[in-house]
Amino acid sequence: MKNTFGSKITLTIFGESHGNAIGCVLDGIAPGICVDEEYIKALLSLRRPAGAISTSRREADEFVIESGVFNGYTTGTPICIVIPNKDTRSGDYGEMAHLARPSHADYTANVKYRGFQDHRGGGHFSGRITAAVVAAGGILLKALEAKGITVGTHIKRCGGISDREFGDIGADIKTLSTLPFAVLDENASVAMQDKILSARSSGDSLGGVLETAVVGLEAGLGEPWFDSVESLLSHALFSVPAVKGVEFGAGFAITEMLGSQANDPFFAKDGSVFTSTNNSGGINGGITNGMPVIFRCAIRPTPTISREQNTVDYITKENKTLAAAGRHDPCIVHRARIVVDCITALVLADLLAERHGTDWLAL
Amino acid sequence: MKNTFGSKITLTIFGESHGNAIGCVLDGIAPGICVDEEYIKALLSLRRPAGAISTSRREADEFVIESGVFNGYTTGTPICIVIPNKDTRSGDYGEMAHLARPSHADYTANVKYRGFQDHRGGGHFSGRITAAVVAAGGILLKALEAKGITVGTHIKRCGGISDREFGDIGADIKTLSTLPFAVLDENASVAMQDKILSARSSGDSLGGVLETAVVGLEAGLGEPWFDSVESLLSHALFSVPAVKGVEFGAGFAITEMLGSQANDPFFAKDGSVFTSTNNSGGINGGITNGMPVIFRCAIRPTPTISREQNTVDYITKENKTLAAAGRHDPCIVHRARIVVDCITALVLADLLAERHGTDWLAL
Amino acid sequence: MKNTFGSKITLTIFGESHGNAIGCVLDGIAPGICVDEEYIKALLSLRRPAGAISTSRREADEFVIESGVFNGYTTGTPICIVIPNKDTRSGDYGEMAHLARPSHADYTANVKYRGFQDHRGGGHFSGRITAAVVAAGGILLKALEAKGITVGTHIKRCGGISDREFGDIGADIKTLSTLPFAVLDENASVAMQDKILSARSSGDSLGGVLETAVVGLEAGLGEPWFDSVESLLSHALFSVPAVKGVEFGAGFAITEMLGSQANDPFFAKDGSVFTSTNNSGGINGGITNGMPVIFRCAIRPTPTISREQNTVDYITKENKTLAAAGRHDPCIVHRARIVVDCITALVLADLLAERHGTDWLAL
Amino acid sequence: MKNTFGSKITLTIFGESHGNAIGCVLDGIAPGICVDEEYIKALLSLRRPAGAISTSRREADEFVIESGVFNGYTTGTPICIVIPNKDTRSGDYGEMAHLARPSHADYTANVKYRGFQDHRGGGHFSGRITAAVVAAGGILLKALEAKGITVGTHIKRCGGISDREFGDIGADIKTLSTLPFAVLDENASVAMQDKILSARSSGDSLGGVLETAVVGLEAGLGEPWFDSVESLLSHALFSVPAVKGVEFGAGFAITEMLGSQANDPFFAKDGSVFTSTNNSGGINGGITNGMPVIFRCAIRPTPTISREQNTVDYITKENKTLAAAGRHDPCIVHRARIVVDCITALVLADLLAERHGTDWLAL
Repeated sequence: MKNTFGSKITLTIFGESHGNAIGCVLDGIAPGICVDEEYIKALLSLRRPAGAISTSRREADEFVIESGVFNGYTTGTPICIVIPNKDTRSGDYGEMAHLARPSHADYTANVKYRGFQDHRGGGHFSGRITAAVVAAGGILLKALEAKGITVGTHIKRCGGISDREFGDIGADIKTLSTLPFAVLDENASVAMQDKILSARSSGDSLGGVLETAVVGLEAGLGEPWFDSVESLLSHALFSVPAVKGVEFGAGFAITEMLGSQANDPFFAKDGSVFTSTNNSGGINGGITNGMPVIFRCAIRPTPTISREQNTVDYITKENKTLAAAGRHDPCIVHRARIVVDCITALVLADLLAERHGTDWLAL
Repeated sequence: MKNTFGSKITLTIFGESHGNAIGCVLDGIAPGICVDEEYIKALLSLRRPAGAISTSRREADEFVIESGVFNGYTTGTPICIVIPNKDTRSGDYGEMAHLARPSHADYTANVKYRGFQDHRGGGHFSGRITAAVVAAGGILLKALEAKGITVGTHIKRCGGISDREFGDIGADIKTLSTLPFAVLDENASVAMQDKILSARSSGDSLGGVLETAVVGLEAGLGEPWFDSVESLLSHALFSVPAVKGVEFGAGFAITEMLGSQANDPFFAKDGSVFTSTNNSGGINGGITNGMPVIFRCAIRPTPTISREQNTVDYITKENKTLAAAGRHDPCIVHRARIVVDCITALVLADLLAERHGTDWLAL
Repeated sequence: MKNTFGSKITLTIFGESHGNAIGCVLDGIAPGICVDEEYIKALLSLRRPAGAISTSRREADEFVIESGVFNGYTTGTPICIVIPNKDTRSGDYGEMAHLARPSHADYTANVKYRGFQDHRGGGHFSGRITAAVVAAGGILLKALEAKGITVGTHIKRCGGISDREFGDIGADIKTLSTLPFAVLDENASVAMQDKILSARSSGDSLGGVLETAVVGLEAGLGEPWFDSVESLLSHALFSVPAVKGVEFGAGFAITEMLGSQANDPFFAKDGSVFTSTNNSGGINGGITNGMPVIFRCAIRPTPTISREQNTVDYITKENKTLAAAGRHDPCIVHRARIVVDCITALVLADLLAERHGTDWLAL
Repeated sequence: MKNTFGSKITLTIFGESHGNAIGCVLDGIAPGICVDEEYIKALLSLRRPAGAISTSRREADEFVIESGVFNGYTTGTPICIVIPNKDTRSGDYGEMAHLARPSHADYTANVKYRGFQDHRGGGHFSGRITAAVVAAGGILLKALEAKGITVGTHIKRCGGISDREFGDIGADIKTLSTLPFAVLDENASVAMQDKILSARSSGDSLGGVLETAVVGLEAGLGEPWFDSVESLLSHALFSVPAVKGVEFGAGFAITEMLGSQANDPFFAKDGSVFTSTNNSGGINGGITNGMPVIFRCAIRPTPTISREQNTVDYITKENKTLAAAGRHDPCIVHRARIVVDCITALVLADLLAERHGTDWLAL
């Protein structure tokens, strides 16, 4: 299923950047979950472009809940959320119509869809679709929070600058929920934003590393093989545009350790079991062990840049050069982090519903 | 679906390390594909422990094809392959029965399965299950090869030693298919094996980085979102025990580049389109662009080591120490590479069947 | 997946009778299929209540295609269709708020959704949702027709009156596409409508039997077991509200025959294979044999009637009586037939995409 | 997924009639369910051909549980059951090799699998595969019974003879579990068996109607649309070879009733809600209402008969005649009933796991 993800709780997305609307259908959610539209708006504003570090396209992201919510609570039936497109200037893209932006999906979309794709602004490949994921995520994050499960993502690294490590993770997640630019260290935050502005001014773009933590998850979620927590999370995370790497716990760095260094020793305290390190990122054998789940996503630099690049006309197959004229983001890392939170919430809610049944999330 | 993966072509795995047998059901495969049992045996021997760099457990991996193959060809119906367990010395694990090996699945399995799991030798979490994946993969890799699509994985890094970069990828893949220890540079190969022996002699273990290349894939496979090639491959790869990170193309390193460095410029030649670099790993917007697909997996050091570690008795919740006495691998990176090839073949065959229909792989 | 059906081509439905809107997301459809909005409108008008034989609720069924169609053709990305609700008089249902209409879903919905369901007008259980299925079906039926595959359903029996048998099925299907009341024999048509009016005047309702034929389908579609053509069609058909039975070919009547009577002898003519009877309904061993696919659905009488019935208040669990005051259909058989055509088209398009690949339907 | 059914609890089947073995993988089953091999054997013996009313092929149906069961309890991992084929006389089928048995799958299999199918004895289309379903069903039926949910099927009609109606359904189900020939009325039982013998002696075959009841099911299972209880059950039931019709409650007969006759009035007693009739078969709006679930399956006469029939050579496309010489069943209705029970148990267990979570069935 191409645009649907999940097993018990499923998300189906639709829409093109410059079409009528984007949106999603969130299904399988327990009846009786309070839907806080103000919270969803707040999440959407964290994803929305803002200031010089983002594109100048301005979208109100006014969403309409078409179904599945009644008197402020989920009914248990599919929740369709539609977000109309408003600030669309397709003319911006006119001159690039057949020029494939390097590392963007223009060329592959044309091969796949045989010329019938809506090419304007990236169409269905646009990062704009992530607004729908965030709207749905607002329902899920809130429901998880009521169960004591919180999710937060910071920009671990961008423009050669690193944020500090997670400390008191619960508190850090709370802090992140209030930050428009999700960096825990204030100096690092300022420095990163400077780097983004500097990339912008040279017509270029930056990527970065997002690090996510989940606290409050019980041990025992996930499966040995194809439904391992890593498998499900990575599947969902790699669907977010621009993600090129996903690692859990120590990730690639674990390959430089000896087993005796990499292993997380268990210890028991007051009848509960913990590990003294967390190189496994809270997951052993594909299953949560009760420690915080930790992972990182590599976000590539935005492919659309205004510097001139070599490319081809994908219709005529002629070699050409291209300098993008439309509005675009010099960096999407700070916007993507809320998408990562939301897609994580989707996977976790689904795993919990699998283990505890349909209604658990609402009880 | 817990132990089934794929959409049109599906693989269902079963079995425990010290139970009757392990095996799999491969379904959805086109009728008329030649099944080369000698080739499957050769693949299995590349996965099988061999020499001092592996566990001393010796399994013949004699497989029985119970169904779905008739007169040497696939029939189009499910192929069940059973591999009986033979060299099982459960006694080896007796003393560790309730001691959770750090970073292994003993503890999480006990939480999840409430004490009913077959704990012997890791049970269903054992790397032994990967033999079933390899047996199925032997059918798929051969079928893909007949279509001009080849897959190969080398040990990019292990014990602080790096292999050379891929060069002529098609030729390198051919070379790798003949190497018991999949390192392209001979000196690096020797050095890595020394490091593994040295880890073994100190009762420790090593991990490493596997790098995989696929050549001959057409442009246009995969989907924008949840069925992106990265999503599907990572889902399958993270199900392989010990994988803690997956990255495509330049992967995490792309986050240190500017957009102008990271982007892969297109060029046309004789009516075909190529990119002059391949930082995207052959995938743009989730869809193959016709360049080689390149990815890397982080393989953690084997968690079972003979050095003493702190842990808990997962029944009594007492703090304990543990030094594993059973047979175990000082490194599984060299064995895992063939599993990665096979699981990659599964994902690719499924994507191709999705695009071209059930029978294409056989025609 | 609760509100999503299909494997390669999927339909996700959403909406409640008296909420904002109903609609659907049709995904996996090949790019390049012409979307004929006039044809969709015509189909919707065949489903829409009309005249005294239907409810007096009047809905324009004005649909908005939010995504997935560009310049009049499918793009290959998800097609979201939204149909706003307009003529909703929730007051009609006020007095029945907690009285479970016998054989309707009021009681079971309340158990399942724990009181959070949108109870107005049946909510998500309302037959109104079928308008979304018809809108999507309009795209699929047209695409199938371009491949020579046509689908038609007549009212085989209603109110004790039988329509004639299918004759020249291709021609009959063409005739049915023009009939607002889908009965091939004119006298039977008049008589059935009289029976419906008579049921209405006594505050009662009627059901009936729908018979569907598909012509132009190739042999070889479907699978031996769980994806048998019968399994997939019945799964989809039983999801249509009010269907209580589905039978293929001779159906239940085949149980009264001897094998020698029931079997459909094969014969060859000009290199093609046919059967001289069609008791199997065009399906042998779950797979199409090239003969017309024939099946029948039992449609129960509309449960909402104005005659007084015994029931309970599902909140207080008190015994009550109920005579429905709202607008309701004395019969939905004539409206359901177009829903059956559309849901059939969904299953067939999916089977064809499975066999021939993503793009086949558009080529 | 072609040979896998279910969402949380899944069954994957494999095998051919005259191949090495048949079998299945049952996955998603809660850990801690007692596996009673004697009970499974007893169920298998109810399915096995016996006496003159069945084929003379004799299979011991000795099954091997290869995985997923440890110390007599389910572990929570996939249960693979293999049943070797023993009494295979492929020679019986030699002369019919290319002659398509009318209404059997020989012709459609050849079209679908392009000549690569294992044609011996029906291959993967053989009713023999149902032995695997029964083996798995033995685990599920027992687990459901421990939850107070019982399933039973009787032969409602065969050879023009009808069994009595269900009376005290719980008691009738208990009786059926002990009957080799599942007819509640003894006279009807004798008469039906006479009819079968008579069909056999004339080289012909009989079909019949199976009626199934489930008691002890809670209200609230199932979904409004695509996962309606009717949809899921019919999907599974139509996958059983020879089923050509499925109806719930009053089924097709409901189409002859007025709404006021067809509706099942609710009444409350001691705080619980019941219906005074059960024309809906325990399902309203796709969801169980707490009353017994009742449905019927039309089983066609066995297509393989020894009377001469017209047919074609599916290779040469020549018209031929065929009189089957192999061993075959004059009727499979009495054997199919236990398959229906088992496949019903699969659907119910899956629905319960969906609603209550993975472990509920074992707790």
